[in-house]
Amino acid sequence: MNEVDIKQLKFDKTTGLIPAIAQDYRSKKVLMLAYMNEESLMKTIETGYAHYWSRSRKKLWMKGETSGNTQRVKEILIDCDKDAILLLVDQKGPACHTGHETCFYNELKTDSKFEADRNR
Amino acid sequence: MNEVDIKQLKFDKTTGLIPAIAQDYRSKKVLMLAYMNEESLMKTIETGYAHYWSRSRKKLWMKGETSGNTQRVKEILIDCDKDAILLLVDQKGPACHTGHETCFYNELKTDSKFEADRNR
Repeated sequence: MNEVDIKQLKFDKTTGLIPAIAQDYRSKKVLMLAYMNEESLMKTIETGYAHYWSRSRKKLWMKGETSGNTQRVKEILIDCDKDAILLLVDQKGPACHTGHETCFYNELKTDSKFEADRNR
Repeated sequence: MNEVDIKQLKFDKTTGLIPAIAQDYRSKKVLMLAYMNEESLMKTIETGYAHYWSRSRKKLWMKGETSGNTQRVKEILIDCDKDAILLLVDQKGPACHTGHETCFYNELKTDSKFEADRNR
């Protein structure tokens, strides 16, 4: 496994953000996609708990700070382009604010051709 | 599982893009994070193979069109906010252009405190 320094990360030039995928380290389910700025990534490293930047509330938040559904970070992986983060986490309770285990609980409506084809 | 229509998706107002995570449907490994515009999502649905929008080359591309390392799409999931896509794919060959199985082959360098803490 290669090692990457935080200074090598490519935060978006306009927003200062980088997308971060949270994946359950046991079930391997993809839990959510959120955004980090450098401060939230530093907080994540310092505390061992996932911190993100809320684009709607324009503030730093620790995942689970109000719900208690925290994410203890087990591993922080970076992609080849250094512009995306993958967190392997120990998720406490449901990850989604709707109460679903993962935020990805919707299926995209597609036509029947796709349904048939993809099972070939 | 809820059903979501493509018209409900929130493509970014400025860029017209939505982030799409590709995950191997068998190993559950997260393979890559890329971006789609509406056209690439439509192509993905029509063909059953993942198509993305290349932000650097500013063009539509089918994953594997030159390398042969295509992604046959098994499932298309949408998150609670409808601003992120998760593709479950049957990945042919390595997903990463570097030859790695997944694009997330780098580990973020952190201090020893984090290393110790996260194994508690």
